[in-house]
Amino acid sequence: MGKVRIGIAGYGNLGRGVELAIRQNDDMELAGIFTRRDPSAVTPLTPGAPVYKIDDIRSMTDKIDVLIICGGSATDLPKQTPELAQYFNVIDSFDTHARIPEHFANVDKAAKESGHLAFISLGWDPGLFSLNRLYAESILPNGKSYTFWGKGVSQGHSDAIRRVPGVKRGIQYTVPVESAMDAVRSGSMPELTTRQKHTRECWIVPEEGADLAAIENAIKTMKNYFDEYDTTVNFISEEEFDAKHNKMPHGGFVMRSGLTGDGEQTHQMIEYSLKLESNPEFTASVLICYARALARLKAEGATGCKTAFDIAPAYLSKLTGEQLRASML
Amino acid sequence: MGKVRIGIAGYGNLGRGVELAIRQNDDMELAGIFTRRDPSAVTPLTPGAPVYKIDDIRSMTDKIDVLIICGGSATDLPKQTPELAQYFNVIDSFDTHARIPEHFANVDKAAKESGHLAFISLGWDPGLFSLNRLYAESILPNGKSYTFWGKGVSQGHSDAIRRVPGVKRGIQYTVPVESAMDAVRSGSMPELTTRQKHTRECWIVPEEGADLAAIENAIKTMKNYFDEYDTTVNFISEEEFDAKHNKMPHGGFVMRSGLTGDGEQTHQMIEYSLKLESNPEFTASVLICYARALARLKAEGATGCKTAFDIAPAYLSKLTGEQLRASML
Repeated sequence: MGKVRIGIAGYGNLGRGVELAIRQNDDMELAGIFTRRDPSAVTPLTPGAPVYKIDDIRSMTDKIDVLIICGGSATDLPKQTPELAQYFNVIDSFDTHARIPEHFANVDKAAKESGHLAFISLGWDPGLFSLNRLYAESILPNGKSYTFWGKGVSQGHSDAIRRVPGVKRGIQYTVPVESAMDAVRSGSMPELTTRQKHTRECWIVPEEGADLAAIENAIKTMKNYFDEYDTTVNFISEEEFDAKHNKMPHGGFVMRSGLTGDGEQTHQMIEYSLKLESNPEFTASVLICYARALARLKAEGATGCKTAFDIAPAYLSKLTGEQLRASML
Repeated sequence: MGKVRIGIAGYGNLGRGVELAIRQNDDMELAGIFTRRDPSAVTPLTPGAPVYKIDDIRSMTDKIDVLIICGGSATDLPKQTPELAQYFNVIDSFDTHARIPEHFANVDKAAKESGHLAFISLGWDPGLFSLNRLYAESILPNGKSYTFWGKGVSQGHSDAIRRVPGVKRGIQYTVPVESAMDAVRSGSMPELTTRQKHTRECWIVPEEGADLAAIENAIKTMKNYFDEYDTTVNFISEEEFDAKHNKMPHGGFVMRSGLTGDGEQTHQMIEYSLKLESNPEFTASVLICYARALARLKAEGATGCKTAFDIAPAYLSKLTGEQLRASML
């Protein structure tokens, strides 16, 4: 099998992460970057990497084995993934949990009709966290699952605070509550409210002369975003903002506390966690190793839509089954 | 599909764990317990559960969908699993890592020739820890993996100290070194020696009048078992031993510290951990959910030998693909 030729549709933080992840996998190569912008205005991180108008992508069907679609879940992916699955094998990181069944159905239909293979909702949540929920709940049916996120930047909440009048720059961190996590780890299977699980931390550069109390109040009472949480609002200078809040860290914890044995009194605890200095780079690394799995499953004749649940782990690795059993089992 | 009918071959701690795990899964039922002992001398935890001589198992081929073989890895499984795979779909927890390729080949041959499906080396290490090594190394190719075990009872080391002259009762705990784990979590990718990763803790009830210093010295200098570790030896009364050391806790940590991004300077950390009050009960829970996967894959026509690497996660869950996507993705 030759190298897997990867197309990148959408060149934001995630698209750049995919470009960089390709470099770490010598069985992959970059076939092209596709953008809505003017290609001549885009400078790829890889010197000489070809950049095309997204509108021209259909002329490239024989040059791309796997197209990784790096758009947003709100409006881009629901439209792009089913559309592009008519012409390419595709992967996306669609993360609007409630709309996954609908997205799956749309992509599955387009991919089956055209004989392509599509993987959706990959990354870490949905993705690796989902896998850990599935494994843990299957192993410990009598138990309780918990997901904590952070400490990390929430894009949606950062966008929300930047819309508040008087806010010049803003970033929001979701912070898991340590004492709540420790209560879970104790095996006591606590019922935890939204407020008990996470706090929200905002860092704001205000506009000159802005009413700081009004900003703070507008944020803390914002429905759906902040009103159910304990939120702190910090005002800082633009200089400090640039120095300390220029990264996109994230992470989180999936825990399963279960009971086994005679009378079901034996505590068993499974915990999975991620601590990421860059959310988009890590998500991209997940997408790239699933691109390897996609190329292999496609070669076996698979079509339609699949998620992380449907893909045997061995497909992700460059190693053969024999090598895996000898080195990693 | 009717209930999956489970046979248990070998009725020690693991066999009893499997019996109890069946109770937690209403799509499973216990078809029979098979033992080398006199069946009339065995009292199952489940009143009325049928107990048979292991020699009579071949007359039960039409009564058992999946046979879980609960023998030891040193001498039982290398012989039993290939032998029984001629007549049954089988699962084992073979855990002698260095001999897995050989065991796989033997079981694969027997299962393929007879049209059965066999899963080997399931449990948590090998098993869940192996899966986490595979996922993490595929996602972060530039990185370093670490496995820490404990705190928990090592059966092999406990057996070894019980063979020391003057030892009446004995148990050994493997303890991961916190500072070593913290060094890994820091992202510094340390090189760690055997001694730096784990300590060994022994609790001994000596024979009346035994030479305690001689016992301690014999343990601490024991080749392959203790000489490469910092070991502590504690002498206690039989009463204290019975009160405090009557459980089989275990667990451990799989960590992957990796680098991504331009220049590969972004730290990414994946950590998976288990904290188990009962090692055999948890291992049994893993085996039982893989029995569900086996029954499904067999119905699809699969034969031969497989490991956790080859089995798509969705097969482990009682939920349908649609339910999984709606509730767990």
